[in-house]
Amino acid sequence: MKLEGLSLIGHGTARPKGEPMHPINPATGEALEPAYHWADLEDVDRAAQLAWQAFRRFRLFPAGARARLLRRIAEQIEAHGPEIQQRAHLETALPLPRLQAETARTCHQLRLFASLIEQGWCWDARVDHPDPARQPVPKPDVRSHLIPLGPVAVFSSSNFPLAFSVAGGDTASALAAGCTVIVKAHQNHMGTSELVGRLIQQAVRECEAPEGTFSLLFGRGTEIGQALVRHPMIKAVGFTGSRKGGRALMDAAAARPEPIPVYAEMGSINPVFLLPGALRERADAIASGLHGSVTLGVGQFCTCPGLILAPTGPDTDRFLEKLSQQMANTPTGVMLTSELCAAYHAGVEACLKIPGVRRLTPPLAQADPVGTRAAAALLVTTAEVFLAHETLMEEVFGPSTLVVLCTDRSQLLEIAERIEGQLTATIHATPEELLEARDLVQALELKVGRLVFNGFPTGVEVCHAMVHGGPYPATSDGRSTSVGTRAILRFLRPVCYQNFPDAALPEALQEKNPLGLLRIVDGRPELGRPDNPVAG
Amino acid sequence: MKLEGLSLIGHGTARPKGEPMHPINPATGEALEPAYHWADLEDVDRAAQLAWQAFRRFRLFPAGARARLLRRIAEQIEAHGPEIQQRAHLETALPLPRLQAETARTCHQLRLFASLIEQGWCWDARVDHPDPARQPVPKPDVRSHLIPLGPVAVFSSSNFPLAFSVAGGDTASALAAGCTVIVKAHQNHMGTSELVGRLIQQAVRECEAPEGTFSLLFGRGTEIGQALVRHPMIKAVGFTGSRKGGRALMDAAAARPEPIPVYAEMGSINPVFLLPGALRERADAIASGLHGSVTLGVGQFCTCPGLILAPTGPDTDRFLEKLSQQMANTPTGVMLTSELCAAYHAGVEACLKIPGVRRLTPPLAQADPVGTRAAAALLVTTAEVFLAHETLMEEVFGPSTLVVLCTDRSQLLEIAERIEGQLTATIHATPEELLEARDLVQALELKVGRLVFNGFPTGVEVCHAMVHGGPYPATSDGRSTSVGTRAILRFLRPVCYQNFPDAALPEALQEKNPLGLLRIVDGRPELGRPDNPVAG
Repeated sequence: MKLEGLSLIGHGTARPKGEPMHPINPATGEALEPAYHWADLEDVDRAAQLAWQAFRRFRLFPAGARARLLRRIAEQIEAHGPEIQQRAHLETALPLPRLQAETARTCHQLRLFASLIEQGWCWDARVDHPDPARQPVPKPDVRSHLIPLGPVAVFSSSNFPLAFSVAGGDTASALAAGCTVIVKAHQNHMGTSELVGRLIQQAVRECEAPEGTFSLLFGRGTEIGQALVRHPMIKAVGFTGSRKGGRALMDAAAARPEPIPVYAEMGSINPVFLLPGALRERADAIASGLHGSVTLGVGQFCTCPGLILAPTGPDTDRFLEKLSQQMANTPTGVMLTSELCAAYHAGVEACLKIPGVRRLTPPLAQADPVGTRAAAALLVTTAEVFLAHETLMEEVFGPSTLVVLCTDRSQLLEIAERIEGQLTATIHATPEELLEARDLVQALELKVGRLVFNGFPTGVEVCHAMVHGGPYPATSDGRSTSVGTRAILRFLRPVCYQNFPDAALPEALQEKNPLGLLRIVDGRPELGRPDNPVAG
Repeated sequence: MKLEGLSLIGHGTARPKGEPMHPINPATGEALEPAYHWADLEDVDRAAQLAWQAFRRFRLFPAGARARLLRRIAEQIEAHGPEIQQRAHLETALPLPRLQAETARTCHQLRLFASLIEQGWCWDARVDHPDPARQPVPKPDVRSHLIPLGPVAVFSSSNFPLAFSVAGGDTASALAAGCTVIVKAHQNHMGTSELVGRLIQQAVRECEAPEGTFSLLFGRGTEIGQALVRHPMIKAVGFTGSRKGGRALMDAAAARPEPIPVYAEMGSINPVFLLPGALRERADAIASGLHGSVTLGVGQFCTCPGLILAPTGPDTDRFLEKLSQQMANTPTGVMLTSELCAAYHAGVEACLKIPGVRRLTPPLAQADPVGTRAAAALLVTTAEVFLAHETLMEEVFGPSTLVVLCTDRSQLLEIAERIEGQLTATIHATPEELLEARDLVQALELKVGRLVFNGFPTGVEVCHAMVHGGPYPATSDGRSTSVGTRAILRFLRPVCYQNFPDAALPEALQEKNPLGLLRIVDGRPELGRPDNPVAG
């Protein structure tokens, strides 16, 4: 495919305007072709108007037709996999095998949402039968299910150029819900975004979805991003990125005449609690696993474990020795941008300025003309120092982690209660220790979206039970997840029909349950047909 | 029970402070005993700290124990029904039969949530089994369900002193979810609030729920209400009242360092669409039904139908004649407060200032020394005038309605698309007309929480499928409902367990499904035991 450097609006492109911007190869610092023209407010308005008009038709598409669109997008991405991965590699410096795996994940997500809406147990269909004889007033017939909110603005992440970007989880779940989508591309991988965007544009055409079901805008978050979130036709927002960026969108959305939900996933420090029995049995294996998890993708994961809590003692000494060796021997990596890399160095330095924080790994020694190269960093301190410095509780985005040594169990618990909301917390323990650590598990349940036992937080499984969310500031809204099929609920709301004739009801609510859906009937779950056909 | 005029904090009362305020009997203007002392910021903090401490234990109570608390509250309210109703009658001027029905509704709500959590299909329990052999990485065991958010601040309504107040739907659904509750009593029915609050306090003690599971504060919304919403220990807000009051809480909650969800139900004009066939067949019956619905409770319902759309023609003339007769013959009623009554008169006058709006009913003739007496008002205008004046699209809280005459069907549709978000919309039509009016139904689905066919919007059935919600500004959050069992979802969020040993999992997620819950297992719904026992 030939890249044009223009936003995609409906079936066409935006006109070239203003001074175009070149994407930068973070490994070499060279400018990549083509240059990209920023969208302007007129483009935002056109995309939003089209998205609203398209929504009115697209939401009424049978689930089977929306599933076909999702599958077609996946097929197209697979067919153009090598081209997409090559471009993403140039724009992000992420290695090709990682980008291949991310392509597979992206297509799996699209197909999982396709099968979800075909099965249809996600629509929360409910039927309450009438009772005309009830005293003092007759009981009406009441039925309800979930319908889509409207056009959704999706803000791509920098660190997942595919799985959390143009055709990523937010787009997949919004389209599955019946919403139309406007993606604000991330400026760090504009070519990758255009490639994937063109494939979605083509799939929309092929599946005869209305023009405006999908648009893709290039531009600055502070300008067209804010304009998108403020546009009256936009009814929800998905975002993956920094806390500052996410909060700015939350504030803009809350200040609208009609406030709208913002689902911002803003990352966290993902604490790992090491209990004595586990360290005794597996100090080396835990060190190796954590090393892999901290340095994976140059630490550029929102689930990167940035905080490790361990009891003082010989097993922890052994663990620390092993981990510091592995961290010190880690080859330096190229981060996504020089800005992120500078922020990484500044974050590590800020921690080191605190008396009582030591660094166990050497600083970057290699020449770094582009300013994107990061060395893995292992810091260590005590629970007292940690609890006295909020700086140490903040995320440092990159391949670093801080080990906090606790002299007793109460410090561990105190830290669990003091930390902010997190995407994940991990406990390494023997099964017996875990059962005895109920207080720790209960404290962490109030802080996180996902609890991991004897594993590592990176690698978020795309499945039905996954929760990739958590209390603020890990996300804007701990009631939601951005990974897994529960993500569709972010873009749905209930609507209820009272005393409607059967023929006038949506199929999902008709008496004979023609779609074979799971429903709550008079307060009892009913499965529908066990193997219901493709809905619609 | 003897009223003391003090806020209830945990198992005790707040100390008397400041100048106490007497509730006013709106029918006579007389001050009622006792006077009430306002809570101060210290009381708010104490209640919130207690609520947080209590939450940590209460959320872990088995569902069966929480259900017993809800049922005990219902029993207590029934046992003291006449005393509560008598006091509510003095404070609100609502007739005793209405207050008896509202008591029954309140107790039904409490029991419905008790049986809901005993059955447990509301916890969205999900299990994804592992696959250790999967390539390139093993698939983990992932399980998740919903847990409560934390302490909830509930703001009572003025118009439902029982069902949307101290032991109302917000309190019932929050306690069922496992949240603890602080109610901000409405100043218009403080004695009723204290009576019900004391019964809840007693039930909390009897059921051995932790102190702080429930508190009740008297005070001004602008002061202690704002302080409650800003308190870091409060994690969600339920509110029923005016748009101005609800928006103020939404803004305060969104501006917190940790933003929290606000579920504000702010009322609407509940449009009623009359199609020609229905008018031809039932003009008189529709007029009578609408008269009853508009004037019920002196029009003080958030589902009061304040807008009626009808085609010009002889059937509508007949309908209007009948409706205007009935409205004119309606005895005047006493509104809840002189402020609400003044706002009602001002609202009607503002409409009448618009050229082309006529009043078909006489203004209030009766002497009204207290300033709480309202006469029913029927206004009429054309679609052109309506569409040109946003004032006519705003709620007038009280026994008035505006009939808008449409010369053709496109005006009906245009109005359906122009109105703001609504709790309800109603269509009167023949079944054939309804099928042909798909475009109208589809336009209204995007505007409302509930569509009523050939009925009237007042009388919100408390059941599983009910949606008492709708897009902003009907509510703060169209994804939710404040009536029906779906209301529990407002106070829950998902948490996920990865690779946990079975014994360390919450019972809801253990492999053998000991609670017999509906679960999604590997993407397929499973009923659990068809007649699962009382959970826990």
